[in-house]
Amino acid sequence: MEILSVMKDLAIIIVVAKIFGLLARKLKAPQVVGEIIAGLVLGPSLLGIVQLNDFLSICAGIGVVLLMFSAGLGTNLKQLMHTGVKALLIACAGVFVPLLGGTLLYMCFYGFSAVGTPQFYSAVFIGVIITATSVSITVETLKELGKLKTELGTTILSAAIIDDVIGILVLTFVIGLKNPEGNPGFVALSTVAFFALSVVLGFVTYKAFKVIDKRWPHTRRIPILALALCFGLSYAAEKYFGIADITGAYVAGVILSKLHDSDYIEEKMDINSYMIFGPVFFASIGLRTRIDGITWDLLLFSAAFVIVALGTKIIGCGAMARLCGFRGKDTLRIGVGMMTRGEVALIVAQRGLTEGMISSVYFTSVILLIIVSSVLTPIILKLLYREKKTGADAPAV
Amino acid sequence: MEILSVMKDLAIIIVVAKIFGLLARKLKAPQVVGEIIAGLVLGPSLLGIVQLNDFLSICAGIGVVLLMFSAGLGTNLKQLMHTGVKALLIACAGVFVPLLGGTLLYMCFYGFSAVGTPQFYSAVFIGVIITATSVSITVETLKELGKLKTELGTTILSAAIIDDVIGILVLTFVIGLKNPEGNPGFVALSTVAFFALSVVLGFVTYKAFKVIDKRWPHTRRIPILALALCFGLSYAAEKYFGIADITGAYVAGVILSKLHDSDYIEEKMDINSYMIFGPVFFASIGLRTRIDGITWDLLLFSAAFVIVALGTKIIGCGAMARLCGFRGKDTLRIGVGMMTRGEVALIVAQRGLTEGMISSVYFTSVILLIIVSSVLTPIILKLLYREKKTGADAPAV
Repeated sequence: MEILSVMKDLAIIIVVAKIFGLLARKLKAPQVVGEIIAGLVLGPSLLGIVQLNDFLSICAGIGVVLLMFSAGLGTNLKQLMHTGVKALLIACAGVFVPLLGGTLLYMCFYGFSAVGTPQFYSAVFIGVIITATSVSITVETLKELGKLKTELGTTILSAAIIDDVIGILVLTFVIGLKNPEGNPGFVALSTVAFFALSVVLGFVTYKAFKVIDKRWPHTRRIPILALALCFGLSYAAEKYFGIADITGAYVAGVILSKLHDSDYIEEKMDINSYMIFGPVFFASIGLRTRIDGITWDLLLFSAAFVIVALGTKIIGCGAMARLCGFRGKDTLRIGVGMMTRGEVALIVAQRGLTEGMISSVYFTSVILLIIVSSVLTPIILKLLYREKKTGADAPAV
Repeated sequence: MEILSVMKDLAIIIVVAKIFGLLARKLKAPQVVGEIIAGLVLGPSLLGIVQLNDFLSICAGIGVVLLMFSAGLGTNLKQLMHTGVKALLIACAGVFVPLLGGTLLYMCFYGFSAVGTPQFYSAVFIGVIITATSVSITVETLKELGKLKTELGTTILSAAIIDDVIGILVLTFVIGLKNPEGNPGFVALSTVAFFALSVVLGFVTYKAFKVIDKRWPHTRRIPILALALCFGLSYAAEKYFGIADITGAYVAGVILSKLHDSDYIEEKMDINSYMIFGPVFFASIGLRTRIDGITWDLLLFSAAFVIVALGTKIIGCGAMARLCGFRGKDTLRIGVGMMTRGEVALIVAQRGLTEGMISSVYFTSVILLIIVSSVLTPIILKLLYREKKTGADAPAV
């Protein structure tokens, strides 16, 4: 592995990923899908121009960490604190119903297995992958419809944020549980210990950053120290608590999210992310995927996976919304608004792969889920609102 | 090499490099010197916390390429075209006198050797290292004195730009020459071929970028494509023409320097650079340096190296300035203004190391040169102007 071939690979990956990303956007699909397909085209499945090597794998790993850090930075802690019980309940239902649905789906396909077997953890992990909502497409659609600032809009937004947090907790717990020496009590303990320490350390770090931020606002040292905190906490989480590095990165982001300069940090991180590390991560998924690994069986599973993933969110969130007092189409709107999946599902799948809990063939299912949910959500949401409009307009005619 | 240890290393390097960089700035030395010392402290010489591994080495290499790309982007082609013969002549003298001086210095210390022997190339390379002026400190000082917009100021600035270009040409030629199959004619030919192709390709690329730039200004695709061009040209230069990758990166920068969005590109590159790749490069120099490799002999050589490097620039540029019509203290001001060295000297030294032309012990000499020249230049320049001021004020009293 030498620098020349690395530069060639990077040049090819970032250009092709960008082109396919833009094409995907033209076709109203998420850009990341285009970037994954770029990897598929460049990789051993088709052209075989780029091989995944150590350097690219580590860059991809850094890409994931940066994405989760950005997600953490974008968390609105204030809103989270003020969010009503409704959003919390909807988020919980939106995590646990899909978790259960995904687990059962896998078991239906590949046989039921006893708690604690590797097969069991694979099943649970399929459930974990579909817990996290990606709200950006819903937000855009609601904005377009002028419904973002309604009670429904803010409920969805808050629920999606809480959903991320609970999803991270579930992921952390499941990974910890899978380790041979990890009994549930110990895992719960180390998870709690990590988050408790994060609160204490987070408070101190936040205060220290606040001083720096006040004295030298908008200076380079702020994003640099922030990045170091992100890497440091990712390392510490995994090394000392047996918790996924991405959890550490996410927590680091949340710690800094209330900072005055958090937008400034996020902007700099995004630049690092979209120039090199992000495209390399998404392309690496394509590079890892072997088209010849796609069987009819897998396609059938993927179709069922998409249906279960979308259905469980709609049912879980919708039913809970109804219990919380939403009525009529609003319950459906909340369910559909929460059903989109995005990067986080891929990140979780990637994590399952490195932990040896799932095989890379399931990336196909996840990619399909992202495409279908991203395309369907705005269409269905608009339909659900249009009908109302027509209904409302009708008496006036 | 796994991602966890990489993240730990990166976190440590970027924080410590930043702290030492800021300390260096407080002490009126260049920040990069602080970053190098950070590497020295962290590396095997002192604490031994961070080891240079494959990943960090490649990151350092990317850091160098990005720095040279930024240097190219910052080139003012228009000014370069309009620069008078004076600046060109001063730049030439400022390259060739130090080149000769450095070569002779090495030979004086380690014995004269026949043309073509490895020893000979080491000597020439010591000369190459001291060819490139780093004008930023001079610019800052002249700005402070309000003399930047004078004929003298613009001459220094233009000469420093041309100086970079000629320095790159010399570096390219010397590296090509050293290769076993490289006879001078062939090297000259491939160098000319590369630059000729760069002009043609550069023109086409520039036009293509201009279209994109006009249609989608300030979009992410612009810095992404620019970065790909930088990596691609670096790769092509070395792979197909036997020319240093940094030359390719510099040329890529020059090609895009006239673009409307060149500042935008430079800004994004700088963020990539200062967050991870830049600090890793400078720290890697410290990590490579072994304090126990520093002997009295080396210190003596380093002292002589600094004196020769500063003296030859002052003599070369100063004498040529006199021939070009500058008089009195102005000749000295130009000489002193051109004597600062910075990152580029390190980058060239790094290149010599990877080519096996010099040993890493000479980094010590280069670092010393950067420190001494950066500290002395503003002091001497201010003295040279103060005396004039007192003289000019005298009659008025």
